[in-house]
Amino acid sequence: MNIQSSQKEMPHVVIIGGGFAGLRAAKDLRKAQARVTLIDRSNHHLFQPLLYQVATAGLSPANIASPIRHVLGTQKNTEVLMAHVRDIDLDKKEVIVRERQKTEEHRVPFDYLIVATGARHGYFGHDDWAKNAPGLKSIVDATNLRRKILLAFESAELEDDLEVRKALLTFVLIGAGPTGVEMAGAISELAHKALAEDFRRIDPTHARVILVEALPRILPQFPDILASKAQKKLEKLGVEVRLEKPVDCVDEEGVTIQGERVHSKTVIWTAGVVASKAGEWLKAETDRAGRVKVNGFLTLPNRDDVFVIGDTACVVQDGKPLPGVAPVAMQQGCYVAKALLHRLGGQPWTEPFKYRDKGSLATVGHHYAIARIEGLNMRGYIAWWVWLIVHIYYLIGFRNRLMVLFQWAWAYMTFQRGARLITLEGDASHPGS
Amino acid sequence: MNIQSSQKEMPHVVIIGGGFAGLRAAKDLRKAQARVTLIDRSNHHLFQPLLYQVATAGLSPANIASPIRHVLGTQKNTEVLMAHVRDIDLDKKEVIVRERQKTEEHRVPFDYLIVATGARHGYFGHDDWAKNAPGLKSIVDATNLRRKILLAFESAELEDDLEVRKALLTFVLIGAGPTGVEMAGAISELAHKALAEDFRRIDPTHARVILVEALPRILPQFPDILASKAQKKLEKLGVEVRLEKPVDCVDEEGVTIQGERVHSKTVIWTAGVVASKAGEWLKAETDRAGRVKVNGFLTLPNRDDVFVIGDTACVVQDGKPLPGVAPVAMQQGCYVAKALLHRLGGQPWTEPFKYRDKGSLATVGHHYAIARIEGLNMRGYIAWWVWLIVHIYYLIGFRNRLMVLFQWAWAYMTFQRGARLITLEGDASHPGS
Repeated sequence: MNIQSSQKEMPHVVIIGGGFAGLRAAKDLRKAQARVTLIDRSNHHLFQPLLYQVATAGLSPANIASPIRHVLGTQKNTEVLMAHVRDIDLDKKEVIVRERQKTEEHRVPFDYLIVATGARHGYFGHDDWAKNAPGLKSIVDATNLRRKILLAFESAELEDDLEVRKALLTFVLIGAGPTGVEMAGAISELAHKALAEDFRRIDPTHARVILVEALPRILPQFPDILASKAQKKLEKLGVEVRLEKPVDCVDEEGVTIQGERVHSKTVIWTAGVVASKAGEWLKAETDRAGRVKVNGFLTLPNRDDVFVIGDTACVVQDGKPLPGVAPVAMQQGCYVAKALLHRLGGQPWTEPFKYRDKGSLATVGHHYAIARIEGLNMRGYIAWWVWLIVHIYYLIGFRNRLMVLFQWAWAYMTFQRGARLITLEGDASHPGS
Repeated sequence: MNIQSSQKEMPHVVIIGGGFAGLRAAKDLRKAQARVTLIDRSNHHLFQPLLYQVATAGLSPANIASPIRHVLGTQKNTEVLMAHVRDIDLDKKEVIVRERQKTEEHRVPFDYLIVATGARHGYFGHDDWAKNAPGLKSIVDATNLRRKILLAFESAELEDDLEVRKALLTFVLIGAGPTGVEMAGAISELAHKALAEDFRRIDPTHARVILVEALPRILPQFPDILASKAQKKLEKLGVEVRLEKPVDCVDEEGVTIQGERVHSKTVIWTAGVVASKAGEWLKAETDRAGRVKVNGFLTLPNRDDVFVIGDTACVVQDGKPLPGVAPVAMQQGCYVAKALLHRLGGQPWTEPFKYRDKGSLATVGHHYAIARIEGLNMRGYIAWWVWLIVHIYYLIGFRNRLMVLFQWAWAYMTFQRGARLITLEGDASHPGS
């Protein structure tokens, strides 16, 4: 693959990663006097805040994923490369990539580099827990989790051993951030509403959903008052919330929470993330979560041609590192594009990045949400509408917005979940049996 | 799992397979004075006629699949078992099943048995072709095929070797029945419309789509005049139709069609099916395609308590075996339920099964279809509307109907395909790179 084929005279901006940060940067560079290349190993941009809805059979994968190629299709200065990044050669200013299922490596030269490779679940040194407590970062994670959750009910229906049946109907979520809370609410509703009528031997409403958190409260990014309301709502939905309970161990049969043994066949990890390998590639200084420490202009301290943004970057503002959330990533993508547009145009750029926190939102089950917006605290039904409108608005692509809205309207009226699909590698043969 | 737990005094009807035949029978037995158990190894009923739309990124899997448990959820005399059938013990009147990921076998006793286990792709003795020429029978088949087709374009974009690039952009469909024809039209439109703008190095509209058929014409179930119109339409869409061309060989690099070598990285098999293993389980006489020969009442010749229906059954009517299509399966499911309702009520049942052929439908790309309905031949735009209405009508579940209609309306207006999603087992880690 010869990446230097066209328009060689223009500066080349390479973006690694098509998440919120990278895609935003690419879109905002549409009028740049530069060639732009976005590299991602998957072909789609993923709307991660709604990934838990795929995992709980509310939405289909295609509802929250858009082909990056299509999003940038009409942007003539931009191309999209679906490839794995292996390394970055800062001296030669090249990104080293490998295509899928191939062994040769290619070098993609850049004049400016934007690294936005995201983060994945981190197990605080207990990587062996990953197998029994999967996390939720990609479409594959979500469909695997959906299969696991739905199969737990199926297996319980067939199980005579009451202890095993109990373990099958016990769902443990580790980590009470927004994903853990939203997921706990969704699983509880799945059991109490969508599945309630569909089994004959088990009563899905007897399923236990346990949300475990090491800190003394849930949802640390929300004010105390909202977090405690959300906790009450969760408990009303049947979720058991266990605070100040560090997890000692996760294995095939369940978890041990501060000495207490809980038998569970479905343990889900939403407790922590570690940044991608970008720190290694860049040989840069990182924080404990592996995030690359950048300066106020979001570049490496000694390299103003290399930006690091999104969950991969550690940006300290007002003495605290910024959280790894979509608004931070999007504002950083926007900022970097703006800085580059100035610099490519020969203008100086002296304005450092400043995150403007517009607020946070989280849903807790059916038509209940908490919201902190521009200093205003909201909760309940109206906050849920705000949550809905904000999420629909940010979902890329007009069609997806309408589809999701429609799917939700339907689920709202009927409590049914449209994507209750168990796909097994083994079911490729004849349909019966 | 103790299947004999409840209502033991009522006769027990066991149905194997939740496809068109089995599900129809189960639904029509809702008021039967019997316990009904439907066994399927997957949790969903699949609307197979639209499976090619999933394979070509037009629809999401959940749009054409409904959880069997939910479809039958309110039917109090019925339960659903998600399990694999291993064998049938006709002497003891028991079905031997195994649960997923378990080794023990269970026995499910029956008074009446309905076997509707379908069919899968058959390679006429060339089972080694399966690897390089996959067929299309399940959701997993469809998403695998979707991944393969979309990745072919991605790989071509990265490929410098012009010969390899050509092979990547060559799609061969073997078998010109409805699935082959509809698939060929859909791939051609995917290349010419949805993907046309999205690549920089390749021109997707240069993709070749070749439809190969051993018989002298396409679509044998349609009148000559309609088939030849459909062929013209396909050719207008850019599909190369090769008739009277038996395939000599399929391998990793392509196919050999009557001595001619065609390099292709995507070969799709839609040429033949073989019935499920039901013939072995029942130790019954089968035809060449493995279908169980049944009498006019759709039972085994010597066993009036064992029905075989749908693609698994060979039913000869007017000297010809009935085709393996959804209307035949549904009418057989309906018939068997009616016969059982009579017999369970103590009434004699003497009316043999008679298939009433209402017609056939097939689409060829965007707003063109051919239809033979009650002896009337139609083609073009109006036939496409008939196709649309009939398919929407038969899609199980109100939500799916609306969702699919909406998705189609959108695709119709924009030529875009909503489910252009490549999910790889390997993309479970961080999103960039």
